[in-house]
Amino acid sequence: MIDLIAYRDLAAKLFADMHYFSFDGVGITRASYGRGESAAADYLREFAQSEGLVVEADRAANLVFRFPETPAENPVIWMGSHMDSVPQGGNFDGMAGVLAGLLCLVARRRAGIGGNLEVIAFRGEESAWFGKAYVGSSALLGKLSEADLALKRREADETLGDCMQALGADMAAIREGERLFDTAHVKTYLELHIEQGPVMVARDLPVAVVSSIRGNFRHNRIVCEGEPGHSGVVPRWLRHDAMFAVSDLIMRLDEHWRVLLERGTDLVVTAGIVGTDPADHAISRIPGRVFFSLEARSRSTDTLEAFYQLVHAECSAIEHERGVKFAFDRRVLSAPATMNPHVCDTLSAACAARELAFDVIPSGAGHDAALMANAGIPAGMVFVRNQHGSHNPREAMELDDFMQGVQVLSDALGPLDA
Amino acid sequence: MIDLIAYRDLAAKLFADMHYFSFDGVGITRASYGRGESAAADYLREFAQSEGLVVEADRAANLVFRFPETPAENPVIWMGSHMDSVPQGGNFDGMAGVLAGLLCLVARRRAGIGGNLEVIAFRGEESAWFGKAYVGSSALLGKLSEADLALKRREADETLGDCMQALGADMAAIREGERLFDTAHVKTYLELHIEQGPVMVARDLPVAVVSSIRGNFRHNRIVCEGEPGHSGVVPRWLRHDAMFAVSDLIMRLDEHWRVLLERGTDLVVTAGIVGTDPADHAISRIPGRVFFSLEARSRSTDTLEAFYQLVHAECSAIEHERGVKFAFDRRVLSAPATMNPHVCDTLSAACAARELAFDVIPSGAGHDAALMANAGIPAGMVFVRNQHGSHNPREAMELDDFMQGVQVLSDALGPLDA
Repeated sequence: MIDLIAYRDLAAKLFADMHYFSFDGVGITRASYGRGESAAADYLREFAQSEGLVVEADRAANLVFRFPETPAENPVIWMGSHMDSVPQGGNFDGMAGVLAGLLCLVARRRAGIGGNLEVIAFRGEESAWFGKAYVGSSALLGKLSEADLALKRREADETLGDCMQALGADMAAIREGERLFDTAHVKTYLELHIEQGPVMVARDLPVAVVSSIRGNFRHNRIVCEGEPGHSGVVPRWLRHDAMFAVSDLIMRLDEHWRVLLERGTDLVVTAGIVGTDPADHAISRIPGRVFFSLEARSRSTDTLEAFYQLVHAECSAIEHERGVKFAFDRRVLSAPATMNPHVCDTLSAACAARELAFDVIPSGAGHDAALMANAGIPAGMVFVRNQHGSHNPREAMELDDFMQGVQVLSDALGPLDA
Repeated sequence: MIDLIAYRDLAAKLFADMHYFSFDGVGITRASYGRGESAAADYLREFAQSEGLVVEADRAANLVFRFPETPAENPVIWMGSHMDSVPQGGNFDGMAGVLAGLLCLVARRRAGIGGNLEVIAFRGEESAWFGKAYVGSSALLGKLSEADLALKRREADETLGDCMQALGADMAAIREGERLFDTAHVKTYLELHIEQGPVMVARDLPVAVVSSIRGNFRHNRIVCEGEPGHSGVVPRWLRHDAMFAVSDLIMRLDEHWRVLLERGTDLVVTAGIVGTDPADHAISRIPGRVFFSLEARSRSTDTLEAFYQLVHAECSAIEHERGVKFAFDRRVLSAPATMNPHVCDTLSAACAARELAFDVIPSGAGHDAALMANAGIPAGMVFVRNQHGSHNPREAMELDDFMQGVQVLSDALGPLDA
């Protein structure tokens, strides 16, 4: 067994360097298929090459790191996560998993040990930039549509397709929906990630093994159209107030959510972006138009579909009652996923052997691991304890917890590669 | 009786000229104490002078038009309304009343008839610019506070005080809360205005006489603070979702409103500006902060106060239930007003004498006339039928209806000046 804890200082330096060139004054910003993410990629490439690893971009512009000696035809274990962050996010969401994998490779190489191992550093996992999550892994799996590629970057005019092309992705193949790698080449996919919820801190668990990953449906932009008017002169019964209508919808969904939870259903519901139209809203004007996003997540595909039908039923009712219209953009789906039981058992055994407090828990957030699992690759995840959640500058993973997670990951490689 | 209908062509030209230099490509924009309003003022000054009228700015930078022969010490009838518009508004809200008064003066002057008459063209009536309505008339009445003068213009950094000063207003006196004119000088205040609601179109009334004007309370910006978080990982019972909280508030207020209406209470409620925080909102982020405006209008001061208490009671309940905090900015109040019965009767008699279909109806929208009435000046209003409401580019007053309104206004001047 290789001692990864000894690589604590190197890990600290790598995180510090990442922070140094990704800090935007408020938080960490590594834009998907954009500048911050590419800066991280360039740094990682240089670091890995200095350690004697081979680094190549795949056909979706993700980075793959491997030992020069391992025969290319050998099936490998992938250790992966993503390089991008949300705007003003933290330093650990995604990057922790990439660095964990690299540390496993570097430690082996320095010890003169090889293995059928690769690290894959995905691009474009965060939906905050293009309104579409898991872009790098989806591209690899041939799962990006023309509509996805036409999505525009947050507050910019460039499309996802343009940004991918600029970074050298094989757009012809991606547009064809071609699978860009041989899934048989990857015998296991492992991903270390910070926990983004409050469970592990509350339960005092430095590491955990993930049993399943929630899927979701999303609408980036639903428009509720009512009828604008002077706020003083239109009586209640003649109003078609888009903001009252959207509030009504949110409260109806909140009530459904509450009832479904009482029945033991796994579900979370979020309207993350809501607003009256800045072009013409005013204090004394009945809002004629409201834009909003809607997301529901569940471990169950059936629950997602049932809740989706509820959303539409309630919108129809509100349209009828309040004289408004809801116009939905494309529904973006991410399937729930189950982690491979054998991989989970191996990771759990590694935790137990190190006498770590751990548990097997579900992931509320989505991860590239879900796509790999749903593509038929046996997948597993290690969670590392993290304060203050993620997607904010206050993410605070303790380095000691991280090193325990890396040790577990490393310990599992032997049995899984056997 | 002077025939004002004969001035239809002149009225058409004045409205066309106003449209010409106030059109922004989408609608009419005459910013309060800003460029569009001043352009209108310059045009009106030149036109009035060419007709031999005296034009002076008052100490709040409003324009006053009068006959050169009328002795300055004579109490006068004021015919007034406002020159500004909302952003992307229509050509008639406010300006119709100013032009109506001017046409009355011009027709008399061309006929060699004088009278104790003045026209006052107010600035800054629309709240859309500074979040404060009736600025020009409030300034004149000594009713602007330091907090009002510190309000910033929509999407700009200049304060109301700066803008007023730049146009020559007597800021020292205004800051002292000094009344800038002798109310005894104004024996009656008359205002012609388009109806901003749907009543007159529905009831086929070209003109109407206003009985009362709704007051209101407003908060320009209430902040609901919750706790942001990753949308996938925080369960419902741990969420402090600011958007769900604001939706909850709006639905509770909607229900109170419904119940109050059933009891015969006069009330309208509007949240015209609502939004998650563009600095950090995202589809997959629980909104930690929502900004919104809130306005309630009623003919009853008691209703406004009672509803205000309800708002605070519901906010407290939601704070407790959802773990959020509501922070209110300053409450801006406009008192309801009753039009003078004698002035109403005189206007009604003028309508009846012309055999016009008319009625006496309340005004849902606020007007400078409310401030004049509440300052003890006998006030009255003539409404002119208007399609599509106001505060939008589709305002559509028929010129024939307008001329009927001007004729009524003119006919009432004789009895009221007697």
